Formats: sequence, C-alpha cells, structure tokens
Amino acid sequence: MTDYALAVDLGGTKVEAALVDSSGTLLDGSRHRRPTGASSTSEQLAAAVTAAVQDALAALPEGATLLGAGIGSAGPIAGTTGDVSPLNLGAWRNYPLGDLVGQQVPDLPVTLRMDGICIALAEVWLGAAQGESNVMGMIVSTGVGGGLILGGRVIAGPSGNAGHIGHVAVAGFDDPCACGARGCLEAIASGPRTVAWARDHGFGGETGEQLAAAAAGGDATARAAIERSATAVGRAIASASALVDLDVVAIGGGFSHVSDDYIALVGAAVAGHSDFGFVTKTRVVASGLSGEGPLVGAAALVHRAELLG
Amino acid sequence: MTDYALAVDLGGTKVEAALVDSSGTLLDGSRHRRPTGASSTSEQLAAAVTAAVQDALAALPEGATLLGAGIGSAGPIAGTTGDVSPLNLGAWRNYPLGDLVGQQVPDLPVTLRMDGICIALAEVWLGAAQGESNVMGMIVSTGVGGGLILGGRVIAGPSGNAGHIGHVAVAGFDDPCACGARGCLEAIASGPRTVAWARDHGFGGETGEQLAAAAAGGDATARAAIERSATAVGRAIASASALVDLDVVAIGGGFSHVSDDYIALVGAAVAGHSDFGFVTKTRVVASGLSGEGPLVGAAALVHRAELLG
Repeated sequence: MTDYALAVDLGGTKVEAALVDSSGTLLDGSRHRRPTGASSTSEQLAAAVTAAVQDALAALPEGATLLGAGIGSAGPIAGTTGDVSPLNLGAWRNYPLGDLVGQQVPDLPVTLRMDGICIALAEVWLGAAQGESNVMGMIVSTGVGGGLILGGRVIAGPSGNAGHIGHVAVAGFDDPCACGARGCLEAIASGPRTVAWARDHGFGGETGEQLAAAAAGGDATARAAIERSATAVGRAIASASALVDLDVVAIGGGFSHVSDDYIALVGAAVAGHSDFGFVTKTRVVASGLSGEGPLVGAAALVHRAELLG
Repeated sequence: MTDYALAVDLGGTKVEAALVDSSGTLLDGSRHRRPTGASSTSEQLAAAVTAAVQDALAALPEGATLLGAGIGSAGPIAGTTGDVSPLNLGAWRNYPLGDLVGQQVPDLPVTLRMDGICIALAEVWLGAAQGESNVMGMIVSTGVGGGLILGGRVIAGPSGNAGHIGHVAVAGFDDPCACGARGCLEAIASGPRTVAWARDHGFGGETGEQLAAAAAGGDATARAAIERSATAVGRAIASASALVDLDVVAIGGGFSHVSDDYIALVGAAVAGHSDFGFVTKTRVVASGLSGEGPLVGAAALVHRAELLG
C-alpha cells in the first residue's frame, strides 16, 4: 500500500489540504479547500483548517499508511515548532497551527514551515530545480515571497522566516512597504504595486490581467511597468546571490505570467547586474510547479525531510 | 605537546601567516607578514606567500604537531578547492593558492575560504558571537565584507563567495560601485566612500581618522557622513536578515571605530527598520576580535572544521 503525507497550505484567502504520496502525486479526491481571509476570527480560521484537514483525511484508502503532516503557512511564522502569525490573518498571532493539525493526526509527526520554503522544496523535489543544491524558490503574485535551500539543506532560520526575498531592498527605489520599511522588493514589484505604478503613469486598467493584455497590445506604459517589476526582481536576486551565492532561482506566482518574457527579463537583469561572476551566474528559470506546488511542497516536509537540515 | 594550525590571511596589501593552537592563541614569534599589492606580479605574490608561510613554519616547536593549513583570502574566490581571484590582486585569477600553501605542508589538509567567512568563524569561536548559530561577521573598512554562519554551519556557497554583504543593495541609494552595479552597500558605507561623500558636502579632510576627529569635534557634515554610513549598514543588515533570519551581526574593521556610537547607530537602524520582528530582533554588536582575528579565523578552518558543514 501507498504511504501518504497530509499536506496543508495556509494562505491569506484559503486553506487547502490533500493527501500526497511519496512520488509527489495528490490522491484523487483528497484535495479540499476552505476560505480564510483577513476578517476571519481565530475560531473561524481554526474551523476552516480543521474542516479541510478532515475532508482530506477522509479520503485515506483503507490499509494505506499516513506518515505525518506537513504544513506550509503564510508568514511570518514563529519559529519552526508550528506557531504562526500570518501578516494577512490578523486573528492569528503566535497561533499553534501545528498543534491544531496535530490533533487530527494523533501520534504522527507534524512539520510546519513558511510557505516559501515549501515552494523551494517542491522546486527541488519535482520542479525546475531538481538536482540543484543552492536554490531560491520564489513567488511573484499579490506579494513576493520565497524560500532558500543552500548546500542542499533548507534554511529556515531561528524564527522560521528565512526566505523573505520580498523584503530585501532594491537600490534606487524608495517605495513605502506594508512592513514599515521602504524600497522592499514587494513594494515595487508585486502585481498590485506594479498595476498601481502603471495607473500613476496613465494606465487605465485595474488588474494584472488587464496590464498583461495592454502590454501584449503594445501599451508602452503597461510594458514599462512590467519591465520595472522584472528589473527590480532581478536586482533583489542579485543582492541575494551576493549574500548566499545562488545557482538557480525558480520563479512562479500569477504575476510571473504577466508577459511571455517576464522570466527572461528577470534573468537579463541578473546577468547584467555587475562584474561579479558569482552573482551573474545565477540562473533564473520559470517554476516547474503546477497549482499543486504549495501542497507538494508541504508534503515534501514529510517525504523529503532529509532536506530540512 | 601542542597541536598547531598554519593560518594564512591573504589581503590586498599584505599576506600574514602564523601558527595558532587549538585555543586560538598565536604562537609567540610565529606571526610574519609580507606586502602584496595591486601592482604585484603573480610571481611576486607567490614569493610573498611562500616567505610568510616559511617564516611561520620555522617557529614550529620541536615535537609539536602541525594539523594542517587554513587560508582566508580576499574575494572573490573560485570555489572551495583553493583557487582565488582577489579583486585587488589582478595578477591572480583562478590562482591555486591552496596548492601553493600545500606545497609547504606536504600531506596535510589545506582548507581555503573567503576572508569574511574566516571572520565569522572567529567571532563564533572566540569573539562576539560565541554560542550563536545564526551569525554574520562583518568588516567595515576600505571595503565592506562578511561571512555567514546559518544553523550553526558556515555558508560558503557553490562558488565560495557567500557573505558578500558589501554588494547587497541599499534602498534609496544609487551610488556606482566598483563591481559594476549601483547602490551596493560598499559603494555607500565604506571608509573611503564615506569620506568622499563628506568631501562632496564640504568636509576638508581626506582620511577616516580626520573624519572621526572632525565629527568628535562637532563638525556636522562629518557627523552626517558617519550616520549615513551606519544607516546604510543597518539597512543592508535588515535585508540580509529578511533573507536569512540572523540573530547577531558582529561588526569590526577600522571604519567601525570612526565614532564611539557607530555600532549603536547601525543597531538603531536595524531595530527601527520595519514591523517585522524577525528582522528587527537582529542584534548588532562590536567585533570581539583583535587584530589577530583574520588569522584566528583562518586557524578555525582547521581547529573548528566541524562548522564547515
């Protein structure tokens, strides 16, 4: 019989759970979701997680083995023991999400990491960074997040929050960020901030999809906004590689599809950044993950635990 | 009898060698130096290293054991196998410094890492970061460099160049850097760049010592230049901690003594950077190392090899 991991992905708008086998395949019928949202109470969030987990567990085939639970959570988190403080879920501060899920899988190991770390694991396991040892997995979407694998091991950090590439600063920018600092990559390059910049420069649309369509249709402002985002992402990757010497960065997330050449634009910004070969050698590739990536990465916390260092 | 490491520190103006015991103490009379310099030929550099090493080895007491050689080199380096390409020693590109030293210690292990990594090791071993597992050691001087220890292990990177904090960008700045990029910390906050900024704003001195004296005497421009440097260092540390979740940063180097409160100014910039506790929790402390720090760190490559991960 097959060995499964219970995979849980907690985000700002939804929580998902599924059973994932040791090849990274989701069990048919085991994937379930519930809404979360910034206005939810702590009890509502707990009920959503519990319901999604129970629905997923109900799909466990008779005779199959459940190995444990892996949880990817929106950050920040509070250490690596299972407590979370997601920026966009204000009702939960130092909330014991690991314990909540653990109650549904008594006596089994529960591992929680930041969602960006799970993405990096999924890229190394089954995505665009297979066989690589010095990797950043990255999401460019409503926010900008990531996770690091260095020397073949996950870098979680003492607070569990290593990988916050969205809050690495970019030279030449001074945009105020929701974190309270200025010039953070997320404040410059996220989908909403890129659309906002375009609107400030005359673009009439309101969504990333509209920006993509306008750029594809030859709108110079929309195109400039996309190039601005990609260049900022490339510069932040260059800073990251100066600091931790990355071989490959795999980029996913909805806004990374805003133009066919977005990944190439990011790569060009890295390749032309400086005279330091150890910076410019960093390859930028498109994510090799599907929409199942966050759950596959959460499952990797169980099935690829040897990478947790 | 005592076990010694041969420690070698290669810099842009000099090479030093010494014998260091397992408590990190330099053997009296074993420390020797030779000049290097940007105008030296490859043969001159090799002769300088060989002479310093031979002088150090000549001090080995009868009956004592030599365990191996540890070499800290100015960066960039080329991997972790012993080849170096120091920016300020143009005659050496992919030069096999490890092999050169190895010829003087036949059949013994030789370990080479970037000098910033050696500093981080020395801070953890005997300096200001003893007992810490998530550390950046940092030098603010003619240049700005550093090294990382994460999860208790040295992060060297696949090219050996992890820790280049001087080439992490700082938001709001756009100064051209010698590396070809713009807005790098080193281009903003190094001693020479800080003096240059002060001169651009009316300061009449030419050295860091003169800048320190002027600021201590109440010169507002000199003081502003020092605050600008410290703030930029703090912002780069904040980016670094967003990415790798540091507990402590130990800062040394000549320019870190430019004012009594330089370290405190850096710490305040980190503490006030953003609303993210995992960033602002990073403690900034003065280096606990003496002028022997680079040699102690090179010796740590032998005596504390378990940290090399």
